[in-house]
Amino acid sequence: MSAARPVTASRDREVALALELAALARPIVLKHFRQPLAVDTKADLSPVTVADRTAEAVMRTAIGRVFPDHGIIGEEHGRERADAEFVWVLDPIDGTKSFISGKPLFGTLIALTWRGRPVVGVIDMPALGECWWGADDRPSVMNGKPIRSRPCGDLAQALLYATSPHMFHGADEAAFARLAGSVRHPLYGADCYAYALVAGGWSDLAVEASLQAYDFCALVPVVEGAGGVMTDWQGRALTTASDGRVVACGDRRLLDPVLARLAG
Amino acid sequence: MSAARPVTASRDREVALALELAALARPIVLKHFRQPLAVDTKADLSPVTVADRTAEAVMRTAIGRVFPDHGIIGEEHGRERADAEFVWVLDPIDGTKSFISGKPLFGTLIALTWRGRPVVGVIDMPALGECWWGADDRPSVMNGKPIRSRPCGDLAQALLYATSPHMFHGADEAAFARLAGSVRHPLYGADCYAYALVAGGWSDLAVEASLQAYDFCALVPVVEGAGGVMTDWQGRALTTASDGRVVACGDRRLLDPVLARLAG
Repeated sequence: MSAARPVTASRDREVALALELAALARPIVLKHFRQPLAVDTKADLSPVTVADRTAEAVMRTAIGRVFPDHGIIGEEHGRERADAEFVWVLDPIDGTKSFISGKPLFGTLIALTWRGRPVVGVIDMPALGECWWGADDRPSVMNGKPIRSRPCGDLAQALLYATSPHMFHGADEAAFARLAGSVRHPLYGADCYAYALVAGGWSDLAVEASLQAYDFCALVPVVEGAGGVMTDWQGRALTTASDGRVVACGDRRLLDPVLARLAG
Repeated sequence: MSAARPVTASRDREVALALELAALARPIVLKHFRQPLAVDTKADLSPVTVADRTAEAVMRTAIGRVFPDHGIIGEEHGRERADAEFVWVLDPIDGTKSFISGKPLFGTLIALTWRGRPVVGVIDMPALGECWWGADDRPSVMNGKPIRSRPCGDLAQALLYATSPHMFHGADEAAFARLAGSVRHPLYGADCYAYALVAGGWSDLAVEASLQAYDFCALVPVVEGAGGVMTDWQGRALTTASDGRVVACGDRRLLDPVLARLAG
């Protein structure tokens, strides 16, 4: 279902920058974790912290220095040259509700997209001390060690994560309920870490909706470089223009049955 | 609502043993985390691991050596002298679904009860390196530092955790939905850690149902020693005989509005 990966040149410089961005954001994010902080309320009611804004600004400056012609889409500071061939997609704190409630399962998400498709992705977990990354021309790693998703050919045996059942609205709610009723255990509350667990071979599925490009782009190279597959709910490759409904399978044999359950 | 605490003698020996039990269980639990493991299926379908059974057996042996007349109630190996005045209540791995899916939010729960009421409690988080404990005659601590729940007098501003919306059945489901619709954010997926976050002053509420004594007894002294309150859904003090519906509030001003929402 997912399109074959493009044959690409090695992305050493891009990967190096992505990891540098994670290293730059990490101390800023950690400094504000479990500290008294000012929580703003944006129009969508998501909590936004000083840490979020500062970390994204620092990452944007670093990108501009190395690749001044690349575009940037960030959760906090918006779009800049978003029609460029290469665009960085940033979410300094994915899982802000975990962050503000003291739960260490928030992550910094950093993606590089080429013509809208994610080609480098970092899931950095500052409070857990885990950095997961993938790129389209090499196997994914966690803290330097290669990771591999696990075989699971039977939906009834699969572990499924979503951040919250409340993220599904309208017809999506019934679609997710059908899927949740077909797996071994539906589990909640992991944010971006759900996709790391699929990539690492500890969980089998992550299925979510209502996401933004900065919530999912970084996840794709990590999951796919570990042997899994990520698509939208129609089985199409994810791009910055996707509709925010995503499926991650550690074993691609699960993709068809998952899409069938979601379709009803 | 919660009964006043009994005046007690210092429980230095009991606290020391509780912390020793956590230290004994920790390496056993960690050794099996993210390792290939045999998962049994009990009648209630909860996953049970070798780690779970071994850790509980080791803790039981240690209790028998120090307090041979105390009773023990454990998740894995059942009840022993459960009518004794002092009874230890053990859950070697609370959050087995987190554990088997590679998520580090599982904990070892150790409680000492006196005439059914929890008087010492430990929430040990092996993968996070955090040991939270409380006893009825002193302030709760995390890794040796005193902790304190935070003020929150307004239900509409409160953060609420439950492990999963699927843990509420029948009338409990509607009761929880009423409460979840009244708070700032309902959040999921924390198991015992939800109560540590309330005790630590990062979250405000944890409300669950369908729990066993070994799921909640250890939480009570941690939350109450940090300034919070824990009761059943009728506002009664929790005992080993409670019905498995629990409320934890960091600020006791939240207790009445929470109980009212649950009652409908």
